[in-house]
Amino acid sequence: MSELSITRADCLARDAQDPLAPLRERFDLPPDLIYLDGNSLGARPRAALERAQQVVAREWGRDLITSWNTAGWFDMPKRLGERLGPLIGAAPGEVAVTDTTSLNLFKALAAAVHMQAQAQPARRVIVTERSNFPTDIYMAEGLTEWLERGYRVRLVDSVDELPAAIDADCAVVMLTHVNYRTGYQHDMAMLTRHAHQNGALIVWDLAHSAGAVPVDLNAAEADFAVGCTYKYLNGGPGSPAFIWVPQRHQATFSHPLTGWWSHAQPFAMAHGFAPADGIGRALCGTQPVVSLALVECGLEVFEETSMEAIRAKSLALTDLFIELVETTCADHPLGLVTPRDHARRGSQVSFTHPHGYAVMAALIARGVIGDYREPEIMRFGFTPLYTRYVDVWDAVAILKDILDREDYDVAAERGAVT
Amino acid sequence: MSELSITRADCLARDAQDPLAPLRERFDLPPDLIYLDGNSLGARPRAALERAQQVVAREWGRDLITSWNTAGWFDMPKRLGERLGPLIGAAPGEVAVTDTTSLNLFKALAAAVHMQAQAQPARRVIVTERSNFPTDIYMAEGLTEWLERGYRVRLVDSVDELPAAIDADCAVVMLTHVNYRTGYQHDMAMLTRHAHQNGALIVWDLAHSAGAVPVDLNAAEADFAVGCTYKYLNGGPGSPAFIWVPQRHQATFSHPLTGWWSHAQPFAMAHGFAPADGIGRALCGTQPVVSLALVECGLEVFEETSMEAIRAKSLALTDLFIELVETTCADHPLGLVTPRDHARRGSQVSFTHPHGYAVMAALIARGVIGDYREPEIMRFGFTPLYTRYVDVWDAVAILKDILDREDYDVAAERGAVT
Repeated sequence: MSELSITRADCLARDAQDPLAPLRERFDLPPDLIYLDGNSLGARPRAALERAQQVVAREWGRDLITSWNTAGWFDMPKRLGERLGPLIGAAPGEVAVTDTTSLNLFKALAAAVHMQAQAQPARRVIVTERSNFPTDIYMAEGLTEWLERGYRVRLVDSVDELPAAIDADCAVVMLTHVNYRTGYQHDMAMLTRHAHQNGALIVWDLAHSAGAVPVDLNAAEADFAVGCTYKYLNGGPGSPAFIWVPQRHQATFSHPLTGWWSHAQPFAMAHGFAPADGIGRALCGTQPVVSLALVECGLEVFEETSMEAIRAKSLALTDLFIELVETTCADHPLGLVTPRDHARRGSQVSFTHPHGYAVMAALIARGVIGDYREPEIMRFGFTPLYTRYVDVWDAVAILKDILDREDYDVAAERGAVT
Repeated sequence: MSELSITRADCLARDAQDPLAPLRERFDLPPDLIYLDGNSLGARPRAALERAQQVVAREWGRDLITSWNTAGWFDMPKRLGERLGPLIGAAPGEVAVTDTTSLNLFKALAAAVHMQAQAQPARRVIVTERSNFPTDIYMAEGLTEWLERGYRVRLVDSVDELPAAIDADCAVVMLTHVNYRTGYQHDMAMLTRHAHQNGALIVWDLAHSAGAVPVDLNAAEADFAVGCTYKYLNGGPGSPAFIWVPQRHQATFSHPLTGWWSHAQPFAMAHGFAPADGIGRALCGTQPVVSLALVECGLEVFEETSMEAIRAKSLALTDLFIELVETTCADHPLGLVTPRDHARRGSQVSFTHPHGYAVMAALIARGVIGDYREPEIMRFGFTPLYTRYVDVWDAVAILKDILDREDYDVAAERGAVT
C-alpha cells in the first residue's frame, strides 16, 4: 500500500473540491451502493419521477389526445435531438431521438449503401470489427442478406488491420466509437478521414460515447451516427435511441423504413410517400411517449456542465481506479484490458480475471455494481455526473478484500449478471 | 324527436343495468368530458400512474440494472404478448409486444415475401387497398422498392375489386381489418380463405380491431398480424405495438431487422446471428421499458370481461349513436360512412358533413372529443369499457345544438384536430 499516491482522505478531499460533485444530487441513487454500471443503465435523474407523473396523469390522463399538440408529443423526437446534439458535435436539426439503436443503425447503413449504390455501385462491402457489439453486426448482415446483389459484411480482427480493409470494395465502414467490452476508443477523425480518402462512407455507433467522452461528429466530417440514451445519458431503461444525419447528407438520406412520421405531411394522410425535409426523414412510426419524455430529464443535467469537465473527471476516475487496482491487487491475476492511453480510453475500465464472473457476482453482493462480459471481463463504468472519487476507493477496497480472501464462488452458475 | 325509440332516462337506465359499467371506474377520465376518441388514444387506466411510479422509482431508481431480470423487463414483450393473445385469437407463444406498428408490419411483410420467394418466386406483388392507413402503404412501398427484383405494391380502389386483384402475381395481401376512416370491417375469414385459395399469404393490421371487435386469427388461419396497443387497448401514448406469428410459420419467419433481442442467445454476445425459437425472432432491439410496462395496465382490464360482452355493448352504442344522429339531426347534411351491417362495422361511427372540420372543432370546444379525417369525415370512437349510453345521448344533443344554431366557424383553419 505504501506505493499509493493517494489516500481515502485524499479522495474525500477531491470530492469536496470537485466542480461536478453537486450534480450527484440530481440523481436518486440508492444509499450504500457503488454504482459502476452506468455504461449499461444510467442512474435515475430525480426529475424523472415527477416528469413520469406529469406525462401519465396530466398529459395522457387529463389532456388526452390534445397532448399530441399541446404537450409537444409529436415534435419530441426532434426537440430532444436539439438538446442532445451539442454533446456529439451535431448542428441544429441534425439529430432525432427515436426507435432503437439497432433500427437507427439499419436506417443509417441502408442510407449509406444507397448513396454508394448511386455513386460507386461496385462497392458492396460493409467493413466492421469482429469485436463490435454483436447486434451491430447482426443488423448489417440482416441488411446485406436482404439486399442480395452481392452485398456482404467483412469482419476485421484487429484495429491494426482496419485501414487496409477499407479497400476498393468497401462501400461503408461501420464502427462503434468506444468498444463495449474493452473501453477502447477509436480515433474518429483519423478513421473518418481514412475512410473518405479510400472512397468509403462511415457510420459511427456512439452507444458508449454519447455523454461519456467528447465527440465532434461535424469536426470529424463523419457521415452518419447512431447511439443510445439509456447508458451515459441516463434516459431510463430502454429509452429511445438517437440518429444523426448531417445537413450535407439529409437531401439524399433514404432508407426503407418509411413510416408516416417520416412523411413530409404526416397528417395529410396522403397517398404516396414524400419524405420530410431534414432529420424528420429518419423517423418511422409513432414513438413511446412516456419513455421518450424521460430522456429530457437526463439531458437537462448535461446542460449544467460541459463534456470537457466531464471528460477531465472521467479520466481522473479511471486513472485512479487503474492505479488503485494495479497497486493494491498486484498479487492477483488481473489483466487491464482498457487502454492506458487517455486518447484511446472511453469512460469504463475492464479487467480480466480467471474467475471474473464469480468475482463480479461477489462484488455485486457487496454493493459494488459492475458487470461481466465473456470472456473473463469485469466491466466498471464511471459516470462523472454521479460517481465520486471515494466510490472508486471503496470499490477497490472491496475488490481487494474479495480477492485476498478468495471470497467468491467459482462454481456459481453463469448467466444472470447483466 | 317523437320518432326516437329511446329517451335520456332510458340511456341512464341502460347504464345502470350495463354489466360493463363498473369497468369505467378502472379509468381516470376527466369530468365533464365525453371522450369519443379512444380509437386514436385510449383513456388512462387508473393503475397506470402507480405502475409508472413503480417502474421509475423502484425498478429503475432503486434496483437499477438488476431489474432486467428481477422485474422481468427482458421478458416483457413476450409476457405482454401472452396477455394480449386471447383478445385476437392467438395461441400461447404467438404474440410479442414490441417496436411500432409500422416496423412490425415491415417484419411481417418481409417474412411473407421471403416465404413466397422460396415457394412461388414469380409472385412479386403486394395487394392492398388505396384506402388503407397510409403508413401501411408507405412501409410496403419502402420494402418493395428496396428489394428491387420487380417487387411492387398494387393498390385496389374498392372492396369489390379486392378478390380479383389477388391473382397469380400476388405474393402477399396486406389489409387493415377495420378501416381507420370509415370503420368498415373486412370479413377476415373469407378474405383469408380467398387469398390462400389463390396462392397468396395475408397480413392483417389490427390497429382498429384489437380490443374493439372480436378477432380470431387462428380460426381464420391468417398468416401474420400486427397492431396497436394505444387505441382500444389503452396502453398509453405511443405504447409499443404487437406482432402475431402463428406457430406454423414461426420456423420460417425471417426478416432483415435482426437485432440482438431476436437472437437465440442474446447474452452470449455470439458472433453470427442465430434466430430465437418462437415469437422471439420477431423482436429486434432493446425496448422502452416504462412505456412497455404501462401496456399491462390496459390489458388487465380486459381480463375482467370478454370480447363478446364488449362487442355487444359496442354495437348497442354505435346503433344508438347512428339512430340518434339520423333522427334528431335529419335536417342537416350528414352522411353515414360506417356500415349499418353489424358484421361490417368496427367500433367507430363516421359521418361526413360539408363543414366536418369546423363542426368537430365546435364539438371539441363543447367537451365532446372526436376527431376529423379528410375529406369531411367526423370520427366518433366508442370504447365499451368506459363509454356510457348517456354519453352517446349527450354527445348527439350537443351535435344537434351546434348544427341547429350553426355554431361553428367555417373559416377556422384546418390542421390541429388530431
